[in-house]
Amino acid sequence: MNLKDVKNLARERMKGYCRVCKECNGVACAGEVPGMGGCGSGESFKRNYESLRNIKLVLKTIHDAKDPDTSVEIFKTKIDLPLITAPVTGSSINMGGYLTEQEYSDAAVMGSIKAGTIAMTGDSANPDFYIAGLNSIKKANGKGIAIIKPRENSKIIENIKKAEESGALAVGIDIDGAGLITMALNGQPVGPKTLEELKELTSSTNLPFIIKGIMCVEDAVLAVEAGASAIVVSNHGGRVLNNCLAPSDVLEDIAKEVKGKVTILADGNVREGADILKYIALGADAVLCARPIIWGAYGGYDDGVKLIIDNFKNELKQAMILTGCKDIKSIDKNKIVNLNKGIFNI
Amino acid sequence: MNLKDVKNLARERMKGYCRVCKECNGVACAGEVPGMGGCGSGESFKRNYESLRNIKLVLKTIHDAKDPDTSVEIFKTKIDLPLITAPVTGSSINMGGYLTEQEYSDAAVMGSIKAGTIAMTGDSANPDFYIAGLNSIKKANGKGIAIIKPRENSKIIENIKKAEESGALAVGIDIDGAGLITMALNGQPVGPKTLEELKELTSSTNLPFIIKGIMCVEDAVLAVEAGASAIVVSNHGGRVLNNCLAPSDVLEDIAKEVKGKVTILADGNVREGADILKYIALGADAVLCARPIIWGAYGGYDDGVKLIIDNFKNELKQAMILTGCKDIKSIDKNKIVNLNKGIFNI
Amino acid sequence: MNLKDVKNLARERMKGYCRVCKECNGVACAGEVPGMGGCGSGESFKRNYESLRNIKLVLKTIHDAKDPDTSVEIFKTKIDLPLITAPVTGSSINMGGYLTEQEYSDAAVMGSIKAGTIAMTGDSANPDFYIAGLNSIKKANGKGIAIIKPRENSKIIENIKKAEESGALAVGIDIDGAGLITMALNGQPVGPKTLEELKELTSSTNLPFIIKGIMCVEDAVLAVEAGASAIVVSNHGGRVLNNCLAPSDVLEDIAKEVKGKVTILADGNVREGADILKYIALGADAVLCARPIIWGAYGGYDDGVKLIIDNFKNELKQAMILTGCKDIKSIDKNKIVNLNKGIFNI
Amino acid sequence: MNLKDVKNLARERMKGYCRVCKECNGVACAGEVPGMGGCGSGESFKRNYESLRNIKLVLKTIHDAKDPDTSVEIFKTKIDLPLITAPVTGSSINMGGYLTEQEYSDAAVMGSIKAGTIAMTGDSANPDFYIAGLNSIKKANGKGIAIIKPRENSKIIENIKKAEESGALAVGIDIDGAGLITMALNGQPVGPKTLEELKELTSSTNLPFIIKGIMCVEDAVLAVEAGASAIVVSNHGGRVLNNCLAPSDVLEDIAKEVKGKVTILADGNVREGADILKYIALGADAVLCARPIIWGAYGGYDDGVKLIIDNFKNELKQAMILTGCKDIKSIDKNKIVNLNKGIFNI
Repeated sequence: MNLKDVKNLARERMKGYCRVCKECNGVACAGEVPGMGGCGSGESFKRNYESLRNIKLVLKTIHDAKDPDTSVEIFKTKIDLPLITAPVTGSSINMGGYLTEQEYSDAAVMGSIKAGTIAMTGDSANPDFYIAGLNSIKKANGKGIAIIKPRENSKIIENIKKAEESGALAVGIDIDGAGLITMALNGQPVGPKTLEELKELTSSTNLPFIIKGIMCVEDAVLAVEAGASAIVVSNHGGRVLNNCLAPSDVLEDIAKEVKGKVTILADGNVREGADILKYIALGADAVLCARPIIWGAYGGYDDGVKLIIDNFKNELKQAMILTGCKDIKSIDKNKIVNLNKGIFNI
Repeated sequence: MNLKDVKNLARERMKGYCRVCKECNGVACAGEVPGMGGCGSGESFKRNYESLRNIKLVLKTIHDAKDPDTSVEIFKTKIDLPLITAPVTGSSINMGGYLTEQEYSDAAVMGSIKAGTIAMTGDSANPDFYIAGLNSIKKANGKGIAIIKPRENSKIIENIKKAEESGALAVGIDIDGAGLITMALNGQPVGPKTLEELKELTSSTNLPFIIKGIMCVEDAVLAVEAGASAIVVSNHGGRVLNNCLAPSDVLEDIAKEVKGKVTILADGNVREGADILKYIALGADAVLCARPIIWGAYGGYDDGVKLIIDNFKNELKQAMILTGCKDIKSIDKNKIVNLNKGIFNI
Repeated sequence: MNLKDVKNLARERMKGYCRVCKECNGVACAGEVPGMGGCGSGESFKRNYESLRNIKLVLKTIHDAKDPDTSVEIFKTKIDLPLITAPVTGSSINMGGYLTEQEYSDAAVMGSIKAGTIAMTGDSANPDFYIAGLNSIKKANGKGIAIIKPRENSKIIENIKKAEESGALAVGIDIDGAGLITMALNGQPVGPKTLEELKELTSSTNLPFIIKGIMCVEDAVLAVEAGASAIVVSNHGGRVLNNCLAPSDVLEDIAKEVKGKVTILADGNVREGADILKYIALGADAVLCARPIIWGAYGGYDDGVKLIIDNFKNELKQAMILTGCKDIKSIDKNKIVNLNKGIFNI
Repeated sequence: MNLKDVKNLARERMKGYCRVCKECNGVACAGEVPGMGGCGSGESFKRNYESLRNIKLVLKTIHDAKDPDTSVEIFKTKIDLPLITAPVTGSSINMGGYLTEQEYSDAAVMGSIKAGTIAMTGDSANPDFYIAGLNSIKKANGKGIAIIKPRENSKIIENIKKAEESGALAVGIDIDGAGLITMALNGQPVGPKTLEELKELTSSTNLPFIIKGIMCVEDAVLAVEAGASAIVVSNHGGRVLNNCLAPSDVLEDIAKEVKGKVTILADGNVREGADILKYIALGADAVLCARPIIWGAYGGYDDGVKLIIDNFKNELKQAMILTGCKDIKSIDKNKIVNLNKGIFNI
């Protein structure tokens, strides 16, 4: 089984839910929510692609970073590369249903561990899906992170307790799910949170608490004040609000403000190793990855996921060699040029 | 009847006059005047689309705007959302004629009221069309606004009187119709107006007077001086002058100058709730909407129009939740980033 | 015979030499020299299109310019609109040969006069073509301008004398033809000129002398010093040097330097009335037009040319009404926004 | 045999390995490594094309540069134009194998000499290919340059000695090959070099030493410090690292720092004579050319290569005439406008 096989199988098994395009740019699947696309005219997904593509690497060949170390420590856990599997649910509704929800979450969690990293599991209008994720984390002896939809606080706290029981490394909410149509359609209200509500959540557990869906400096500062251990700069893959900015448009300003005070994760169109390097250079501590992991799971279960992540690791290493970064903390702004900003000096 | 049905029916009934494209961007219908397109090579319509698309929303999730109020008061009338149906005529010449002129204007006026807002009715080379609009306003007990082409002042004043008789809330002229080819072809001259001529019009009635077709600061200032109650920043959907700027290119500068002195309406490519939010953030008090209303009317008469507007309301509410706006007056420049300007700070 | 018929006939008669595309943007015909395209990869033609399209008009509706005067005086001759037919030769080699060279130049010269303006005639590797142009000018009692290729000075002066004999209003050289492949292939060397050589040319005649093919400030200043009466800002329709700037990229800077000292003509992708307004706003006194005139001639001889020019006149008038310009000298920088420059204030 | 024939034959003989597209822009062949494309999604190749296309020439027609001299002296060798054939290997793996490796390198070396310039030969995972190149150089009595992959220093020095024995004019390494997948796959490790390692290489030979693959100012300065005679600003045709900047993005800054201290060669998407002029204007002393040379070799062996280079020479001369450059050292920044920088003054 190689990468090409996995992608071909995934394409076949996803029956058009995802076309596994040559360029995963949000064009073919625009509007497919449920499904794999961006919502509305798909402009947020497309901007995620476009903005990240406009960030260019500075090739560098004279240095001694011949065998870079790609590992990082996140939530006191060493992982082999700064990439964590993103929380994804809805195998039937979004991906075509070739895998059951449990099969999908097992593949994501186990494949990630096999590849030397960890996965987040998700929540959904169907509460069974959250349980499926916890089941996978339990099987992995707690090596996983449970992400809960921004439901009423009492419901979230209930779910946090279940995550603690499963031994999860960390918990959190994907507050960017506040506008998810599928949740509302199923009578399970979600919404934004106030600072006070967030404080109640972070103080309800001893686990590191993650707030996913931060897209402006003001919210990043509030997340820190609320006691979050980590934020995820994410617009939910362009699936909740059409026409918004990309994570790579806002990450640099956010990092300028909160770097060091909170773990910064970035999520959006990570499709190759160089994308990880770009997000780290913009200020992230690690990235999340969703769609390629789905291809891995659909194309080859946990081994498919491992293959996908191993490939990211190789590509990242190669990109680090060719930009002169001997380890992740050596990756800084000098390694990239942001053409989105229009002006550049090398 | 749902939105998809309405659009499909509209596409069928409009027989190619409008293709109801996935992206309504002015490409397929370029040059189709009469018809639904922009004039000439369609560049003004295309720029309207492009400029608005380049204005991005700032996703915000930590706040207490959980149930935003979308209502506003315009011309002392409370409407459920800051969207007014634009004046449109020519059901046969522009839309294919499945609806009679009277059916179209009834659908627009009644559907708008059913959805909690109001419609403007229009004027045309065929003077019967203006009467059709007034008929609809009468049926609605005056809940509507009559917009008159920029004919000779005496002719306009005559039409204003008729509008007063129909009980209309307000009247106005779409001065951007000054170059309409279809009017000239029918021997009904239209043209620009001097300040003095505008003063004569505004002082001829006690109704609020609207000047539609303001695209530069200088004209906005003159409109205020002429005694207008409202201006509409509009290039007539790109149908009168090829190659001109988009409303979203000029709105911010205009609002800087006249906001508060006059009601500012914006008109151009409003296709989803987020577009309303963008125009409000740039300085508008409300927007006009034309082509989607036509789809509603052609796809389902007044109920189709209501469905279209209700959908805008839901989308706007969702966009307000995800940008943290508890009411319309909370929507300001911090909610958007204008990529047309090339530089941005979040 | 209407505009559509003329274009359709032209398309048919040009047998693919020109496709008379919906958008005349240099894409379909890239590399077709001989033919109607830009040379090489066609980038200069494409840039001409793109740069001009990025210049936008400021719609203005409150003013008294209800019946603008489009006329100007050029070379002491009043013309009905600031558009002169560009010098074009090679009916067989470039256009497919449906018209003989003499038929083409007659149509261009006579059609222009019928429409209230004048034409330039051209020169070519085949010296008969220059004579054909002079024949047309003679038939028109001298109402035309003879443009000569940048041959050796002695040869040019010989041709100037012939033009004088034909009674031409003015003469000149299209110095941008310095790199024409077709000339070199036929053993008729052309080339750039020094200041001294230009002085010899301007002082050899009492007629106004035009230098066509000025694309930088330095050359514009030299042209004035050489005694030219007029310059044409032109890159020869993108047909001599691939990858160069567009006339609309350089015109403003050139006008800043030499406006008033010399008549400034602009040449490049004039396809509708608004394009004339744009070039005037950037600093031109009038424009040249080539490809549409060819369509007119091929589609309807002199009457086709007249139809094309009359249409330009109507469109220009309309554009002047909608931008508030009562005459050509009222057209200034405030009427346009140049998006090529990236920043704008209305 | 003419240029068109050569390209058609090449297209046929390369059996899809290269489509010899109308525009060689990296789109059709994206990801084809091995093959002729850029690696990954091909973004680096595409950026090379796009960045260079955005650099425009300033057409100039009033001057005395009527018969420009295109020759330069590089490595104390006078060549007829500032273009050197780039090192390329892998006729079977990358080009389809119609030519044997020896046939390809003979065509490149001999064709270049026939056209008045010289070629670089390359190195590969298959060590025989390096020998093939040296064979060609030997046949040419040493008129060629041997470029070695960035292997271990001892291996490079061994190869330098062989190059000296073949009489090569100069030697070097293509350090941008540090990440070549094909090398790693064949167990022949390559990598970046430290300053000390480079010093060891430059001091191991009396031949001029070239470092190919410099893409930032810092590396350019280090190359000078290491004792290099020349650098090549190159991203290996976009074949080693996806998403990096183009040579034309970085050349100007590099030249500002090291011009005069080291010979600067530029490599990337040279497809016509004007491209040479652009790179020289940005600061290069000469350019390398790869893909068109391959078309020449595949379409017509050494005569095909000569035809390609002769055409470059003619086009360069033409571009120099039309920009007013009487010799290569007259080509400076005033001859171009870099639209990548967004602002321009002529």
